[in-house]
Amino acid sequence: MKELQELTRGIEPVDANFLEKAEHHLMQLTKPPHSLGRLEELAARFVAITQNLHPKIEKKTIFVLSADHGVAAERVSAYPKEVTQQMVANFVSGGAAINVLARQVGAEVKIVDVGVDADLAEVPYLIRRKIRPGTRNFCAGPAMTIAETLAAMKVGCELAVEAAREGSDLVGMGEMGIGNTTASSALLAVFLQKAPEEVTGFGTGIEEQARARKVETIRRAISVNRANLGTPLPTLAALGGLEIAALCGLVLGAGRCRLPVVVDGFISSVAALIAIEMQPHVADYLYFAHLSPELGHRLLLENLKRRPILDLEMRLGEGTGAALAMGIIEAAVRTYSEMATFETAGVSGRSSP
Amino acid sequence: MKELQELTRGIEPVDANFLEKAEHHLMQLTKPPHSLGRLEELAARFVAITQNLHPKIEKKTIFVLSADHGVAAERVSAYPKEVTQQMVANFVSGGAAINVLARQVGAEVKIVDVGVDADLAEVPYLIRRKIRPGTRNFCAGPAMTIAETLAAMKVGCELAVEAAREGSDLVGMGEMGIGNTTASSALLAVFLQKAPEEVTGFGTGIEEQARARKVETIRRAISVNRANLGTPLPTLAALGGLEIAALCGLVLGAGRCRLPVVVDGFISSVAALIAIEMQPHVADYLYFAHLSPELGHRLLLENLKRRPILDLEMRLGEGTGAALAMGIIEAAVRTYSEMATFETAGVSGRSSP
Repeated sequence: MKELQELTRGIEPVDANFLEKAEHHLMQLTKPPHSLGRLEELAARFVAITQNLHPKIEKKTIFVLSADHGVAAERVSAYPKEVTQQMVANFVSGGAAINVLARQVGAEVKIVDVGVDADLAEVPYLIRRKIRPGTRNFCAGPAMTIAETLAAMKVGCELAVEAAREGSDLVGMGEMGIGNTTASSALLAVFLQKAPEEVTGFGTGIEEQARARKVETIRRAISVNRANLGTPLPTLAALGGLEIAALCGLVLGAGRCRLPVVVDGFISSVAALIAIEMQPHVADYLYFAHLSPELGHRLLLENLKRRPILDLEMRLGEGTGAALAMGIIEAAVRTYSEMATFETAGVSGRSSP
Repeated sequence: MKELQELTRGIEPVDANFLEKAEHHLMQLTKPPHSLGRLEELAARFVAITQNLHPKIEKKTIFVLSADHGVAAERVSAYPKEVTQQMVANFVSGGAAINVLARQVGAEVKIVDVGVDADLAEVPYLIRRKIRPGTRNFCAGPAMTIAETLAAMKVGCELAVEAAREGSDLVGMGEMGIGNTTASSALLAVFLQKAPEEVTGFGTGIEEQARARKVETIRRAISVNRANLGTPLPTLAALGGLEIAALCGLVLGAGRCRLPVVVDGFISSVAALIAIEMQPHVADYLYFAHLSPELGHRLLLENLKRRPILDLEMRLGEGTGAALAMGIIEAAVRTYSEMATFETAGVSGRSSP
């Protein structure tokens, strides 16, 4: 499909030469070899992605893609659907967790309506890219058409391209959408070929009975949409969400621009996984911020053979884990660029033992 | 002993009422209950320590206690002893990892000479509190006298009291001293009643042969000093270091001032453990920044039943892990103080499921 080819083109694996050069530089710094642990790996990845041997993180942007889900009608969430639009209002007035954590790490938050089921015309500071007012309930057929899915992906891709053009050095993925752990678990079950109960968790904090209903809903959705689950794009259309498609597009766009991306928790990771299914090289451009206690997230990360940066039992989404991890990545990059070398500092190297 | 009583007096457990009040407030914020995971626990601890229901972290200080170790003569480190003084020079000129990471989180770094075996009279910006030029080699008898140990502890205690007086809201522990993982492993073996090989690691990156020598050195030291290993203070004197004693005193001083302290990695944790042995309530005032891969650190944390905030395989000391964790703690405290509540933001609460 031409539109999909367009979205996945121009993404190269990172250049191993830059990784090597970065590792060489890290050995010169005034510290025992590898003693900064995973910070060194984070810094080397940044150098390899950006192909800049003097890396700096000056501008950080977190995108919170917001959309509603038809499947919320199945009572799969602990919160009413209206919370999506209410939280969008909370985001733009700066009172949500993501606003606070972004301020803490000096990142700008951009709130994007890619499919909230409400008229948000009077909400200020909102990036308006609504494809449609929420997805259809995927228990009765595909959540989105292929055209809608591609349109949402294109929104995300354009956000990444624009962020790169505006000078963002690091981009974070966030989302808001009541019902979106249900969509994410459904997608993950299909992509990892797992039974729904293996990848379906408690979302925002439902009870065991509601979780059983959620698992059953996902089983039904997979069965109803069976014919469309052969390749990534129709699968995303059938079981996804507008914000998930947009985040998938954002990852692809960032890969093309060689812009490092920080994946947040469960939902963002599912979007990233789908982007990787569409174009495996894009994995090189990603940091995985944290391990969510949401069932399925650990499986997903193991499947990608990637270790999260943080493990703080956060399960809020919005990009909150990404924000915190951006602080760690920036710290890592700064040690790379700002530490003295053994030679310049006049510090002795290793002796015999 | 009067001096020790003086150092451990006035330390109360934190007030459980404040923990409860903090947890109640966290439930009002616009997020699913407990969804900020461990950030909520970090914030609640901060409230309970400071007894302030409107907590703020405005001033952060990291102390890097530096001292030499007589046991370095046994070739237990990968680096020559001179590296202690060379790194002190690197610290004051801002080129070390701790300087970079402290800048990243907005903390001030204070470098303290509590026992470097060199004349540092011309080193600027140094806090001069030298007790003696390094410890004695504890393979031949106690590393320090009781009087020297108490003097070093008092230095640390005074640093904490002064930091509180100057308005620090959060204090980080760091250290520099070639040979100090050997001292720390020796202390840990005694306090946890473990064989030296169970708590002795690769320090700054020694080879297996040097590690065997390190284990053997510790075994000898414990045997030689056996008569002094009955209670915490003489044990610290026999097997410790001047910076370890000072850090132990810093923890006690902070507890008395209700000043939250971020413990760094292996060496700082051993110092904290000894403070807790002397006065168990002081544990309430501590955050454990990160899990070091240094053998013994995991055992120590398990023994204290405490979970570290980060696990990034850092093993550099200097306070580097504490610096990064301070950023996370500040983020946690800010969510507590800056997030909107369901009521003020007009966001709906949970519905049935």
